[in-house]
Amino acid sequence: MVPLAVSSLFNMRARFTLRPIQSLLSTRRTSVRHGGTIPPRAATFAKPGPDHVSSLRSLLSSSSSLLSTLDESATPEELDGYNQDWMNKYKGNGPIVVKPKSTEELSKVMRYCYDNNLAIVPQGGNTGLVGGSIPIHDEIIVSLANLNSVRSFDEVSGILVADAGVVLETADSFLAEKGFIFPLDLGAKGSCHIGGNVATNAGGLRLLRYGSLHGTVLGLEVVLPDGTIWNGLSALRKDNTGYDLKQLFIGSEGTIGIITAVSILCPRRPSAMNVAVFSLPTFEAVQEVFSEAKGRLGEILSAFEFFDKQCFDLVKRHSETAKNTFENESNFYCLIETSGSNAEHDEEKLSGLLEHVLSTGLVVDGVLAQDQTQFQRLWHLRESAAEAAGKTGSVYKYDVSVPLPKMYSLAEKMRARLRETGLLEGDGQPEGRIRALAAYGHCGDSNLHINIVADGYSAETEAAIEPYIYELVAAENGSISAEHGLGVMKAPHIGYSKSPESIELMRRIKGMFDPKGLLNPYKYIV
Amino acid sequence: MVPLAVSSLFNMRARFTLRPIQSLLSTRRTSVRHGGTIPPRAATFAKPGPDHVSSLRSLLSSSSSLLSTLDESATPEELDGYNQDWMNKYKGNGPIVVKPKSTEELSKVMRYCYDNNLAIVPQGGNTGLVGGSIPIHDEIIVSLANLNSVRSFDEVSGILVADAGVVLETADSFLAEKGFIFPLDLGAKGSCHIGGNVATNAGGLRLLRYGSLHGTVLGLEVVLPDGTIWNGLSALRKDNTGYDLKQLFIGSEGTIGIITAVSILCPRRPSAMNVAVFSLPTFEAVQEVFSEAKGRLGEILSAFEFFDKQCFDLVKRHSETAKNTFENESNFYCLIETSGSNAEHDEEKLSGLLEHVLSTGLVVDGVLAQDQTQFQRLWHLRESAAEAAGKTGSVYKYDVSVPLPKMYSLAEKMRARLRETGLLEGDGQPEGRIRALAAYGHCGDSNLHINIVADGYSAETEAAIEPYIYELVAAENGSISAEHGLGVMKAPHIGYSKSPESIELMRRIKGMFDPKGLLNPYKYIV
Repeated sequence: MVPLAVSSLFNMRARFTLRPIQSLLSTRRTSVRHGGTIPPRAATFAKPGPDHVSSLRSLLSSSSSLLSTLDESATPEELDGYNQDWMNKYKGNGPIVVKPKSTEELSKVMRYCYDNNLAIVPQGGNTGLVGGSIPIHDEIIVSLANLNSVRSFDEVSGILVADAGVVLETADSFLAEKGFIFPLDLGAKGSCHIGGNVATNAGGLRLLRYGSLHGTVLGLEVVLPDGTIWNGLSALRKDNTGYDLKQLFIGSEGTIGIITAVSILCPRRPSAMNVAVFSLPTFEAVQEVFSEAKGRLGEILSAFEFFDKQCFDLVKRHSETAKNTFENESNFYCLIETSGSNAEHDEEKLSGLLEHVLSTGLVVDGVLAQDQTQFQRLWHLRESAAEAAGKTGSVYKYDVSVPLPKMYSLAEKMRARLRETGLLEGDGQPEGRIRALAAYGHCGDSNLHINIVADGYSAETEAAIEPYIYELVAAENGSISAEHGLGVMKAPHIGYSKSPESIELMRRIKGMFDPKGLLNPYKYIV
Repeated sequence: MVPLAVSSLFNMRARFTLRPIQSLLSTRRTSVRHGGTIPPRAATFAKPGPDHVSSLRSLLSSSSSLLSTLDESATPEELDGYNQDWMNKYKGNGPIVVKPKSTEELSKVMRYCYDNNLAIVPQGGNTGLVGGSIPIHDEIIVSLANLNSVRSFDEVSGILVADAGVVLETADSFLAEKGFIFPLDLGAKGSCHIGGNVATNAGGLRLLRYGSLHGTVLGLEVVLPDGTIWNGLSALRKDNTGYDLKQLFIGSEGTIGIITAVSILCPRRPSAMNVAVFSLPTFEAVQEVFSEAKGRLGEILSAFEFFDKQCFDLVKRHSETAKNTFENESNFYCLIETSGSNAEHDEEKLSGLLEHVLSTGLVVDGVLAQDQTQFQRLWHLRESAAEAAGKTGSVYKYDVSVPLPKMYSLAEKMRARLRETGLLEGDGQPEGRIRALAAYGHCGDSNLHINIVADGYSAETEAAIEPYIYELVAAENGSISAEHGLGVMKAPHIGYSKSPESIELMRRIKGMFDPKGLLNPYKYIV
């Protein structure tokens, strides 16, 4: 690495202790919420019984592919990991878990369920935030974990074809060896499945650079509710022969079919990467630096993240080293990442930006990573926000999108509202029922994450937040779910972001694919 | 511009005469083909009459918004431009042209047509290649030409919201003034409409860099067949609240709704652009240079096009200056374009590539543009191929996608087939019934354009080409229409690229949106 002209202005003061966000998965809290908005069990669905278990078992090649309390092949505790989400916020009572080892096996299972009116919940890595991947009542849990092979990779085109159950990080490591990168990255990468990523249209950290899955996914293999295998596993970048059916499954949250394989276009892995973090006085300054970064870094800008003081305060509670990152802290922080093919060129461009933002006083202080370890430590400042919130209390998570200039005002208005109700006595103070409201997000996508950290989940607190927060978003024509999806949490609130005409069209699409409503019921469109 | 280290190796020998591809629009040929595959008029549709004309007229704010031979507000000749395509290959007999001035007017028109069983063909710039935008029988022609305003542009996010009838070049010029670029470029830009681009999922020259419209289009406003205005005109980059309905309209060729406005994400306009053209001995060399270009140019590579000797021969027939471009011609040519934010960096990267491909003998000769004029002239070598083919004879155009290593073999096999039938007596010789088979395309997208230039359109020639060419594509799991769409030309052949399950799903989607089948009938899915 060539030292930057301005590197002396930056120091890497802290020695951080890395703790990946995936460790959250083992940080279960005890309070379980069963909201009043969860619909009652549908009477049209058959109740799973021992006969169903033996019939389903006969369709599977391995006895380990079915776990059930009904034939005592599993204890209730052994099914807990499938029945509840990692936040312990949602919990169902599915007595049967099926883990097919091939698309054909899944097809037989779904055909059987269709013929016997058995409802199904598809489950990938179970890392979602809206209760979309666990049963609400006694749905059959279909785990994709045993469909986990890479099918093919073409080094000329960069097209990867892989089973739905391949873990995102595994796919990316496979690609790294070939000099390519998966065009999606997110905190849960160590656990989430690429099939689940596509089913939920995951956005993540580098959407700014690589675009949405609607652009990068080239094809899908899907088992439809009646067991039909739909082979749309194209490896073509251009194909204008009819409606682009795969698009309907991207972000459909398992309601019209179960994705079994994904064909996706993967870019070359950048040979040079840099990351810098700044402290800034105002959200206006964040926006100004973002605009400068887009202009000066152009095609090498790969992420532009921000977090607020309250968020950094949470991170510092659990990380001594984070405290020593900046000599001059401030109200906002932004993280800039570059990815390119020529380290010298990238550093020159970044250096130009750094000189500008420092000389104009746009930023208060800054830190630039000098090596791979520091690179990951700086990213950790931003990525550990969710983990730090989870360690501090029970977290109400909101994931919204409104135009960038209006984005942060949502957090401010929400904070004012909570102060008015007396629930938030002081920012970050542990005395209040709500301990903190922390905000972070992706400037490149106008995507804000609001984490409201409370003593526990309660109806009173929820009523203070919802639907107020959705009303704020609707007033700006925003999205009440930028990337987390609807699941069970936001299904009743879709009307804040979608018109009655849109919802009616969605109902018709659901009805066309799944006339019995067996796939992932009680969620998404209710 | 800093001179490149290797620039002395390259010369700009020719003075080209620019002739934009759009001039093709006025180059009408006389032979008109009415293929036997065009279905008969549907008896369920009402026959347009004078009463319909006066009723429709009453829904429109301006008398100039309706042209019809039925009330003598237009002569048959005046409707010719709406009834036939620019190649004069397809021609219909629509007696009524409606040009609404607002989405609301269009909604009223469509409601009236729906209630009165009148079939409709939507028409943008009428620049398509598969007969998708002209009536087959007497459908009402709905032109979007009067919906041509930019609605808004946000300079922070780069999000443009514009009416469907805005001409692509107009949109791009508007954006250029703001320092942004439309994320799509194609030869017909001077005439085609952005709504038509979205309705046909146009690909074009820089898909390699900016991705497909499925990724860049953020929202649409669409009038549904019954006149309902569907407002999906989101300006959000991330929104996971339900099925992504807009995706169904992208590439639907006006069969389930008429797009009236588009919201699209536009990148910053690159401040530096370079273009180089090489001659190469083999298609293997083309692929090797492509692989090198992806590695060495990385994020600044914005186009990688190729054309063959036969294509260049056609171009040279009509351009004295093209003849002097290379000292050493060869069997293949490739065009490389870079777009970046720092001219010096880009030239250094390109220079590294040029040195490599010259020193290793991968290329025979090369030309590098030194200024904007030369930039356009080099592009013209590739872009004028379609025009040169059209000047030489009647052109059978095929637009296919197969994996890159197999791509050129399609042209070779087709050429061999035509030689066997005796239709092609010698490459480029004017004696044969088929005068030339020229191939060019987009390596970045594995998209090959085969132009078969004949004395005229004839059933015998067509039978020699089709379905043989589609069978070749199907054998490689390719697409028989990479970017041109299905229209009337390829509708009967969709089975070569799509499974019966896919076609059945498409039929159900068509039926769901358009139960009377009034929108763009006889095409797409038949």
